[in-house]
Amino acid sequence: MAEIGARRYPVHLGSGLLDAVGPAWVDIAGRGSVLLVADGGVAHLADRVADSLSSAGVRVVPGHVPPGEGSKTLGEVERLCRLAACEGIRRQDGVVAVGGGVVGDLAGFVAASYQRGVRLAHVPTTLLAMVDSSIGGKTGVDLPEGKNYVGAVWQPDMVVVDTEALATLPARELACGFAEVVKYGLLEGGDLRERVAAWGDLPGPEGPLVELIRRCIAHKLRVVAADERDLGLRATLNLGHTVGHGIESAAGYQRYLHGEAISLGLLAALRISVGHVGLDDAVHQETRAVLERHGLPVTLAPEVSTADILDHMGRDKKADAESLNMVLLPAPGDPRIRQDPPRDLVIAAIEELRG
Amino acid sequence: MAEIGARRYPVHLGSGLLDAVGPAWVDIAGRGSVLLVADGGVAHLADRVADSLSSAGVRVVPGHVPPGEGSKTLGEVERLCRLAACEGIRRQDGVVAVGGGVVGDLAGFVAASYQRGVRLAHVPTTLLAMVDSSIGGKTGVDLPEGKNYVGAVWQPDMVVVDTEALATLPARELACGFAEVVKYGLLEGGDLRERVAAWGDLPGPEGPLVELIRRCIAHKLRVVAADERDLGLRATLNLGHTVGHGIESAAGYQRYLHGEAISLGLLAALRISVGHVGLDDAVHQETRAVLERHGLPVTLAPEVSTADILDHMGRDKKADAESLNMVLLPAPGDPRIRQDPPRDLVIAAIEELRG
Repeated sequence: MAEIGARRYPVHLGSGLLDAVGPAWVDIAGRGSVLLVADGGVAHLADRVADSLSSAGVRVVPGHVPPGEGSKTLGEVERLCRLAACEGIRRQDGVVAVGGGVVGDLAGFVAASYQRGVRLAHVPTTLLAMVDSSIGGKTGVDLPEGKNYVGAVWQPDMVVVDTEALATLPARELACGFAEVVKYGLLEGGDLRERVAAWGDLPGPEGPLVELIRRCIAHKLRVVAADERDLGLRATLNLGHTVGHGIESAAGYQRYLHGEAISLGLLAALRISVGHVGLDDAVHQETRAVLERHGLPVTLAPEVSTADILDHMGRDKKADAESLNMVLLPAPGDPRIRQDPPRDLVIAAIEELRG
Repeated sequence: MAEIGARRYPVHLGSGLLDAVGPAWVDIAGRGSVLLVADGGVAHLADRVADSLSSAGVRVVPGHVPPGEGSKTLGEVERLCRLAACEGIRRQDGVVAVGGGVVGDLAGFVAASYQRGVRLAHVPTTLLAMVDSSIGGKTGVDLPEGKNYVGAVWQPDMVVVDTEALATLPARELACGFAEVVKYGLLEGGDLRERVAAWGDLPGPEGPLVELIRRCIAHKLRVVAADERDLGLRATLNLGHTVGHGIESAAGYQRYLHGEAISLGLLAALRISVGHVGLDDAVHQETRAVLERHGLPVTLAPEVSTADILDHMGRDKKADAESLNMVLLPAPGDPRIRQDPPRDLVIAAIEELRG
């Protein structure tokens, strides 16, 4: 049971839960109708969720979206809201998002905005969405000027995480989610970091995998509950994301998937932490080995220039106009937000990624 | 000082306050930048607000929108958000809305959504916006399928009501706002209803006018504070709006301005209240006289058919699919929500409007 601000909602986590979404939804929302948002890549999973809802007596309005970040537009929001309106979705009805981060962000913003807000269930189907984007209530779409520039903070009414969905996830996508898992290990330290460091092949055996995801979700929920609107503590979740976003953006969102850019961003943040706040270099080395072992990039392509990365870091939405905040790590489990780390250290850390 | 949920914000109310918006904004938001949203109809007022902000050291990015309900689209939201992004408006900056309900609804949704929410000041320049739409946090835009179908509940950080703005407001617009004032008189009863019944020419002398607006705002704030997300009590504010929206919509949003349709809707609601919950017919008659005296319609045009009105009442966003909720009034100051008032009484009340 998650508790954010005044809201409490269940997080169901286990194996085979896609077929239980219907009764769980009826428990919180009653029967009625839902707009089920999914892309073609997860049609086999969305069908199971739709069947479960229908069997429980819920009318399902299918809302297909094209796969990929290109669907995160206000145009898609309008199309889905008009579909909901035409199909008679009411204020007491809701939206069920089945998919990865793109579908969750888009469908979440539709749920936040349609008739000024309706119920929402997240059914994340990627590891990244399970441990990160489905948790915490951030929703939104992109503008040509920047990613997630239009959105809302809108908590779901329930989250259903079925690790079975990971069985058909491409290895590259699994690794991307694992980059965020590595981040949680560093942020929390202790036992979680040890589990992450010792993790074998992805996705891994069911019992420990469910527990690993549960621990990551629990960490994020604790931080979000303390800082829903992202004014302070929540910023620690951006470990690796300042340089990571700079790399992702400088590479035109083509060469690196989000989790791959975060892999590089984590290494840069740890390198800067070694030089600026006294992190033991062994943590940096160990993290590099873990990321590499799971197929994540640890060296940066030469055609992505350091100047471009620095430029795009400055344009990060979270960046202040005058200064650059970064999450640094004096030790695992002890993240600190530091303003304006020395520029030469930042540059050296990026250069070091060139191997 | 208004208090909604966890938020408190000042409501400045008086004469000549447009020139004090700048210092008031700096008090709550510091310097930095604002997107100032206004339409050409209030350029003379928006210029005063912009000058006040600039003098206080705030950078003003002008966001002009075309006048009229046609501006309440997701396309305009996107255009304004892109403008804000291009001009470097940051999370800690904000939006200042200068105008009537359309500008407030649109700019409010931009503030709610841009970078997942930035600060917002409402500077309402119509009587309707002063007593109703700028208060309570409802924001949104229209879809072809219905008005206000996409939006957010987003409380402002301050509201500045300057009654000087009413000096240049067309008489028809003034009367429209007064229809909502009449509604508050009925909802609250007692002294407020007496003031409203005895009101002379609009807008009226400054001191009593400020007090009248203050009382209406205070009523709405009390109700909204108890029910921010419109789940129960807040529905009482819809007195006159069920039939009113039906008339407005059946007439294609052409013949009647919102307040004019509400004038007719109030009379229908009171007529049904006389027949169904024992309201004294004298209240109905007195209200009819007050509305008529201020130039508001009390008879319905023959070309707007009763069948169309009933049909559009059913499609009201607030309506349940299966039943029709209406606010009825057994006595002034005692609004009640009643499900499915007898259909013959509703039809008779609409027919009676034909005079």
